[in-house]
Amino acid sequence: MTANPEFRLFDLGMNPDFTEKIADQLGVPVSPVDVKQFADHEIYERIVESVRGIDVYVVAPIADPVNDSFMKLMIFIDAAKRTSAKSINVVVPYMGYARSDRKTRSREPISARLVANMLQSQRVKRVMTMDLHTPQVQGFFDIPVDHLIAMPAQVDFLEKEGTVGENVVCVASGPSTLKIVRRLAEEIGAHWAIIDADRDPDSEARVTGKVEGLHAIIVADMIDTGQTMMKAATAVKKAGAATIDALATHPVLSGDTAQKLQESDLDRVIVSDTIAVPEHKQFDKLQQISVAHLFAAGIQRVIEHKSMSDVLKANGHKEG
Amino acid sequence: MTANPEFRLFDLGMNPDFTEKIADQLGVPVSPVDVKQFADHEIYERIVESVRGIDVYVVAPIADPVNDSFMKLMIFIDAAKRTSAKSINVVVPYMGYARSDRKTRSREPISARLVANMLQSQRVKRVMTMDLHTPQVQGFFDIPVDHLIAMPAQVDFLEKEGTVGENVVCVASGPSTLKIVRRLAEEIGAHWAIIDADRDPDSEARVTGKVEGLHAIIVADMIDTGQTMMKAATAVKKAGAATIDALATHPVLSGDTAQKLQESDLDRVIVSDTIAVPEHKQFDKLQQISVAHLFAAGIQRVIEHKSMSDVLKANGHKEG
Amino acid sequence: MTANPEFRLFDLGMNPDFTEKIADQLGVPVSPVDVKQFADHEIYERIVESVRGIDVYVVAPIADPVNDSFMKLMIFIDAAKRTSAKSINVVVPYMGYARSDRKTRSREPISARLVANMLQSQRVKRVMTMDLHTPQVQGFFDIPVDHLIAMPAQVDFLEKEGTVGENVVCVASGPSTLKIVRRLAEEIGAHWAIIDADRDPDSEARVTGKVEGLHAIIVADMIDTGQTMMKAATAVKKAGAATIDALATHPVLSGDTAQKLQESDLDRVIVSDTIAVPEHKQFDKLQQISVAHLFAAGIQRVIEHKSMSDVLKANGHKEG
Amino acid sequence: MTANPEFRLFDLGMNPDFTEKIADQLGVPVSPVDVKQFADHEIYERIVESVRGIDVYVVAPIADPVNDSFMKLMIFIDAAKRTSAKSINVVVPYMGYARSDRKTRSREPISARLVANMLQSQRVKRVMTMDLHTPQVQGFFDIPVDHLIAMPAQVDFLEKEGTVGENVVCVASGPSTLKIVRRLAEEIGAHWAIIDADRDPDSEARVTGKVEGLHAIIVADMIDTGQTMMKAATAVKKAGAATIDALATHPVLSGDTAQKLQESDLDRVIVSDTIAVPEHKQFDKLQQISVAHLFAAGIQRVIEHKSMSDVLKANGHKEG
Amino acid sequence: MTANPEFRLFDLGMNPDFTEKIADQLGVPVSPVDVKQFADHEIYERIVESVRGIDVYVVAPIADPVNDSFMKLMIFIDAAKRTSAKSINVVVPYMGYARSDRKTRSREPISARLVANMLQSQRVKRVMTMDLHTPQVQGFFDIPVDHLIAMPAQVDFLEKEGTVGENVVCVASGPSTLKIVRRLAEEIGAHWAIIDADRDPDSEARVTGKVEGLHAIIVADMIDTGQTMMKAATAVKKAGAATIDALATHPVLSGDTAQKLQESDLDRVIVSDTIAVPEHKQFDKLQQISVAHLFAAGIQRVIEHKSMSDVLKANGHKEG
Amino acid sequence: MTANPEFRLFDLGMNPDFTEKIADQLGVPVSPVDVKQFADHEIYERIVESVRGIDVYVVAPIADPVNDSFMKLMIFIDAAKRTSAKSINVVVPYMGYARSDRKTRSREPISARLVANMLQSQRVKRVMTMDLHTPQVQGFFDIPVDHLIAMPAQVDFLEKEGTVGENVVCVASGPSTLKIVRRLAEEIGAHWAIIDADRDPDSEARVTGKVEGLHAIIVADMIDTGQTMMKAATAVKKAGAATIDALATHPVLSGDTAQKLQESDLDRVIVSDTIAVPEHKQFDKLQQISVAHLFAAGIQRVIEHKSMSDVLKANGHKEG
Repeated sequence: MTANPEFRLFDLGMNPDFTEKIADQLGVPVSPVDVKQFADHEIYERIVESVRGIDVYVVAPIADPVNDSFMKLMIFIDAAKRTSAKSINVVVPYMGYARSDRKTRSREPISARLVANMLQSQRVKRVMTMDLHTPQVQGFFDIPVDHLIAMPAQVDFLEKEGTVGENVVCVASGPSTLKIVRRLAEEIGAHWAIIDADRDPDSEARVTGKVEGLHAIIVADMIDTGQTMMKAATAVKKAGAATIDALATHPVLSGDTAQKLQESDLDRVIVSDTIAVPEHKQFDKLQQISVAHLFAAGIQRVIEHKSMSDVLKANGHKEG
Repeated sequence: MTANPEFRLFDLGMNPDFTEKIADQLGVPVSPVDVKQFADHEIYERIVESVRGIDVYVVAPIADPVNDSFMKLMIFIDAAKRTSAKSINVVVPYMGYARSDRKTRSREPISARLVANMLQSQRVKRVMTMDLHTPQVQGFFDIPVDHLIAMPAQVDFLEKEGTVGENVVCVASGPSTLKIVRRLAEEIGAHWAIIDADRDPDSEARVTGKVEGLHAIIVADMIDTGQTMMKAATAVKKAGAATIDALATHPVLSGDTAQKLQESDLDRVIVSDTIAVPEHKQFDKLQQISVAHLFAAGIQRVIEHKSMSDVLKANGHKEG
Repeated sequence: MTANPEFRLFDLGMNPDFTEKIADQLGVPVSPVDVKQFADHEIYERIVESVRGIDVYVVAPIADPVNDSFMKLMIFIDAAKRTSAKSINVVVPYMGYARSDRKTRSREPISARLVANMLQSQRVKRVMTMDLHTPQVQGFFDIPVDHLIAMPAQVDFLEKEGTVGENVVCVASGPSTLKIVRRLAEEIGAHWAIIDADRDPDSEARVTGKVEGLHAIIVADMIDTGQTMMKAATAVKKAGAATIDALATHPVLSGDTAQKLQESDLDRVIVSDTIAVPEHKQFDKLQQISVAHLFAAGIQRVIEHKSMSDVLKANGHKEG
Repeated sequence: MTANPEFRLFDLGMNPDFTEKIADQLGVPVSPVDVKQFADHEIYERIVESVRGIDVYVVAPIADPVNDSFMKLMIFIDAAKRTSAKSINVVVPYMGYARSDRKTRSREPISARLVANMLQSQRVKRVMTMDLHTPQVQGFFDIPVDHLIAMPAQVDFLEKEGTVGENVVCVASGPSTLKIVRRLAEEIGAHWAIIDADRDPDSEARVTGKVEGLHAIIVADMIDTGQTMMKAATAVKKAGAATIDALATHPVLSGDTAQKLQESDLDRVIVSDTIAVPEHKQFDKLQQISVAHLFAAGIQRVIEHKSMSDVLKANGHKEG
Repeated sequence: MTANPEFRLFDLGMNPDFTEKIADQLGVPVSPVDVKQFADHEIYERIVESVRGIDVYVVAPIADPVNDSFMKLMIFIDAAKRTSAKSINVVVPYMGYARSDRKTRSREPISARLVANMLQSQRVKRVMTMDLHTPQVQGFFDIPVDHLIAMPAQVDFLEKEGTVGENVVCVASGPSTLKIVRRLAEEIGAHWAIIDADRDPDSEARVTGKVEGLHAIIVADMIDTGQTMMKAATAVKKAGAATIDALATHPVLSGDTAQKLQESDLDRVIVSDTIAVPEHKQFDKLQQISVAHLFAAGIQRVIEHKSMSDVLKANGHKEG
Repeated sequence: MTANPEFRLFDLGMNPDFTEKIADQLGVPVSPVDVKQFADHEIYERIVESVRGIDVYVVAPIADPVNDSFMKLMIFIDAAKRTSAKSINVVVPYMGYARSDRKTRSREPISARLVANMLQSQRVKRVMTMDLHTPQVQGFFDIPVDHLIAMPAQVDFLEKEGTVGENVVCVASGPSTLKIVRRLAEEIGAHWAIIDADRDPDSEARVTGKVEGLHAIIVADMIDTGQTMMKAATAVKKAGAATIDALATHPVLSGDTAQKLQESDLDRVIVSDTIAVPEHKQFDKLQQISVAHLFAAGIQRVIEHKSMSDVLKANGHKEG
């Protein structure tokens, strides 16, 4: 490495392959951090080489175990802050707690805001993330948020394998994903439909819109327990879809979700690599699309002070 | 007035009738503020009587003209802060700029967060508001937000006149209002439907769900230019609804909206009184349901340190 | 424009000619912002081109309508902050609310401090302004304030037309402008006098100092309603002045002030262009001296990290 | 002392007699603080008795030696903050550094704002002070400032000895005190005049307004080196005044000012007791009017949550 | 429970028996919180009953798993903050990360300060804790810290069983505990000694001071891996002590420390109950002294606004 | 000086020789500041030349008179902040108040934290200091602290004169310096011992460890009143040391300490030049080792964005 590169890229061990891919695309090594976790889960970190006057980028999905991941990130930030880094840029491919973005009942926390508060309180300059559960979470920060979307990578994938056009239907698993579903449908020239699920967890979901005989792609921002996704798959199957894929950005895959998905009505579960999927959660139907190149492109734009707009576009896809 | 009441209620002239109603229910007078606006729109305020050690409540919808309204509120807060008020509690029945709650394109502001930042920077203790455009806006604040909903007053109104049950259909004008529509439908035992409008402003909207022969209630949080509402009304009419009402909390009614609504396919436009509707914006189809008693009840709960839950309920309506 | 200029200059529509003049002198274009104001006065803005890593300068007099102007500025700042501008430099040729700089009675606000608080809370790096009502307002900020003065431009103007020397008297309209009047008198080798007005608005003002037969220049930082100025003119006329000019930096000219000034005892009303004077406020006696070159010079000094001292000087005028 | 009085009054040794007078009027003892200053001037303090849940009032003029006085106050505040005092109320009869309230030249500090920042950063609830050099300094704080004025005590003093009416002239030593001089003149039915001093320190001052044969009272907020005051006295004497008194709130009396005043053209130097005048600075012409009762009344109003307005009034004097 | 008690005590599940003991002594119930942890370790909490206007006390040792414990506490704080609790008082019997209180090498964090920052950033009013690793950690907070010590409970225990006087020697395991050891020795009339361990982990420790034939008590603030303690025990044994006890406040007991201690040269391991010791970490030599009554007494003093001094004392033990 | 050097070095008059030495090593002049102190101790400062866009380094030991020194520094910072310095880097060779780093009794302040708070509140970027009383004080700051140690200079000095090896013993005057003593002993191949002083000030101290016939060096971070040092010297002498030196970083030397040290059992008092020792405090046994080159090296590293590690090392001395 040259003596004084403009920036350094760090990984804290949550998803090292992902960081390696970003590093490769940027043509830089991953800089070393000494990270230890003691028996009581206390974390110790030390940045191995000087970062005085350097722009620091650290890649840290706040994923399972979310609290350990979050504290690893915070402690790294504290160390970087105290050692005169020029700026601290936090790359959080998946932001845990983002679903806690409002009070649905009295006396609840808004944990996403809490996480945002803690992150930005320690002199972080910028957060780069992807497909937040709701776009309003950007407003929980007072620092710049570069909000990437996985769709360009997803569209590329679907186009390459030909899952586009009139034979395909993009399905929203509920009202909150309808906007994104319609946009995807537009991108790949497909139809769209919506699952009309009652609040009652025991009731059956129905599909509004035509899916019969079509290749159905049920879309979500994340798959955690997979309940909503599998219920939707059942409804779509009943409505006569030819094949059924799940398409989601973040593979949270809590507990035994992997196994359940394998046994579900889904034909494929297509996710990105924002979160590492450990060996024991791998399953046959799972397919991972890398979005590391989008993060690499995003970081490149930040470093070169260029607009992020083109990173947010697939072929012919309009800027959002 | 007794020498040292626990709190004082102030009005800044945006919606004085509304504040009067709250004052009546609380059994207190509206305390005087001297508010002047000069020819260049600079605002001068002076709190007439001492509020040292007093809990101050000020009612100020941030409505047309929103910037003047906002500055009137901020200047009041500054005066109260400097004169040793015990606490400053801001009652904002309608929060202007709340729709600017996310970046939809690069290089946009998030004005709702900006407004939240400015409000809470000046030692405000609490914000009380109603039916924010998205519930995530609560998370833009770090101080307590008492988020009231108009639904209890709306349900009371509909029940009293008998617009309930199987003959009624609650219609969402788009995906974002679907949740609230389903909840209202549940409350009054009605059906629900959704308008399936394209992004293309010229295309025609279609209704998903049965409305034929029913009393349709199209629901929204606010009516500003009324475009979405009137387009929905046309679709609902075409789909054969017997009657068509618009039901919204906040009557923004910008420009000549009032006139357009009067000439629209709507039979009635039912709004609350969170925003004053000046004489020249009154029209025959307009009907105002007061929600002042909900704010009075909310303030009462705050003063007595009681839970707000029952203020959020209609008959048999479960806490949300 | 080259790919990565060091800075960009923005205008928000309050005084576009003034910004154009600054831009011309700096040899840069005015960068585009999309500014819309809706019927309810809500403002929408979008910065059209990327400003990542760019020093942003925005010109925005907080003038009539002051609250709209102020919010336009705040919303611009929020957008710039969120899109990773390198720094945000706010150029406020006229700062509305600066007169509210102290409590004259109990329970008043100090609105100038409130405005300062709100401006600097959103990561603004620097404020550049001119002839604040009192110099103490600089201390309301904790960020650098570049405080320009119009006097160099005024002295140039007076020297060019020969209104200098023993035949001229500079008149303070009250104690608070006495310092500036004496300094101006020194600059142009003139006499000085002071108007000795009672607090009683109905009483007549008298002049202390000789004005008889002289060219009188009554000096003020701004002309708002013009009451003080016109009363002074009457006194000066009665005292036998040969001609009477008003000289002020900021042409607030609220309401029908323009018409009143035209009909007053004043021969000329000489103001700067810190505030746009719309067509309907133009009047025969009005003469505008541009101070745009002083702001251009100030911005140039900031960009080049040079001392501002020479921008504060007229010919032979000592640094202040 | 009873177990749980509402408040405690502390003194830090700058002006203990003054604090004792306040305590007497409030009917409470002065609570003990252990204050030590080491040979290197480091200060140690310990609050002797528990103040948990107690409103703390500390009296601390920031006077000679100003930096030691300021740090004594700050360290007291830190101790009180850490030991769970209910509130910390700072009574600063004289605020050192208040004259540094603006930049008169480039690259100067605004030390008054710095002092305000440091004071209010440590959770101080309120500042009570008297006759700030400029009223704008109130705006340097974002917490309530109770700004008392000495005038009621001065008017009482002058009325009791009969220095009122047509035989008296109140003289402003320069433009900045003209407002207060005119108000005092109005209070005691006297004339007013102004000293017309050049900037040139060697030039002679002249009096504008009639003083011949009258009892002249030259008014200032403070007497530090006394230069301005003595120069004014010479001018007033030359203009034929019968007697000449100096009237000022704060007796700073730096260095050998006391001796110089004794030898000056002044007949009396009438000051308040906001600052302790040590034995070696006492001189025959000096006369001290206590304003402790005004501070006692101010604290009483704060404690009882009553308006401060009447503390700001002399007989028949209108609220300011 | 009565309608409006002055305060509520909450437990977050880290050490419920300890909280129950505190509650019993205070004569109040533990108020319910709904705490869930999902498969990805995200935490959800909801405060079950209204705490508007209530002083909230929450007991939460930040112990193994420290990051989960810390986030449980932070999320509780966020919920309490948003629901208008009067004050949030955080009782942290053991503060994880307190050992990271300085940089021992370049580019390390100071995690104790980070934790302090995050805790106090969310409007926490007070922290109550016990035996911090170094007393300087109090200075990491800007809010009041009530720093309890276990020594009164330890002295009571030793006195009751007669482990006092000339036959006992208190042993410091290193320089950093020497102060506390000397104080304990003074309390129980015992001798003291110090272990003279090299930095070299392989070298043997020696005892400085007489231990031969005495009952040795090796003192530490916590036992984590137990390495230092066991090495000290070996040295003390070699030096001829009759019996050897370990005395520590916080039983961190990471990993298989319990088993190792059971097999060590120690006769007893006497710890407090600030941290829950789960069943599988219990061992024969372990003895727990409750300090819950000290926390109960501390909370009582806070509530009653009384001095904490007597809680810090054993019999005849002087205030520290 | 060239037009736009990267940085400027300022001195505020506390220790000008020290700053000159740093400047010499850095090859830059000391930039001029106009510093005045008035009779009442109010400080006035003005930075003489423009520092817009310049990195400012100011050298200011907070030493006797500490409060004046501290305010000189704060006022400089305020001036630099307001005039658009690029960054403000504070070099505090000796940090007064650092000993007040914890509460030893109830109701005490933590003045070191207070000083840290005030310093970093005014936009200071970095603090560089040396041998803080406890390393935890670093954690009182949230900005980078470059913590230098005098040991490399001390080791150089001792090696040059041959005070190394088996004939030398490094003596800790108490537990708190033991760590540093052992490290020094390791550096110079010497033995170590510890003074075993009772709390009782009248009791005699004893030495633990062999000193008989050796050259003893008693180590401390500072010498203030010298009590501890002189008591230790007496004990070391009694234990038979051949010669006795005191070695300390900071020569506080309050009051008549110089004279007492001269008359003590010490042979030499070896201190650094972090604090100026005025003529009247010079004494025969005093020897000053300059550490200015370490500060120069530290500043050089900061400017060049290089690691500070080698500045912390003597010959073969390992990084700490």
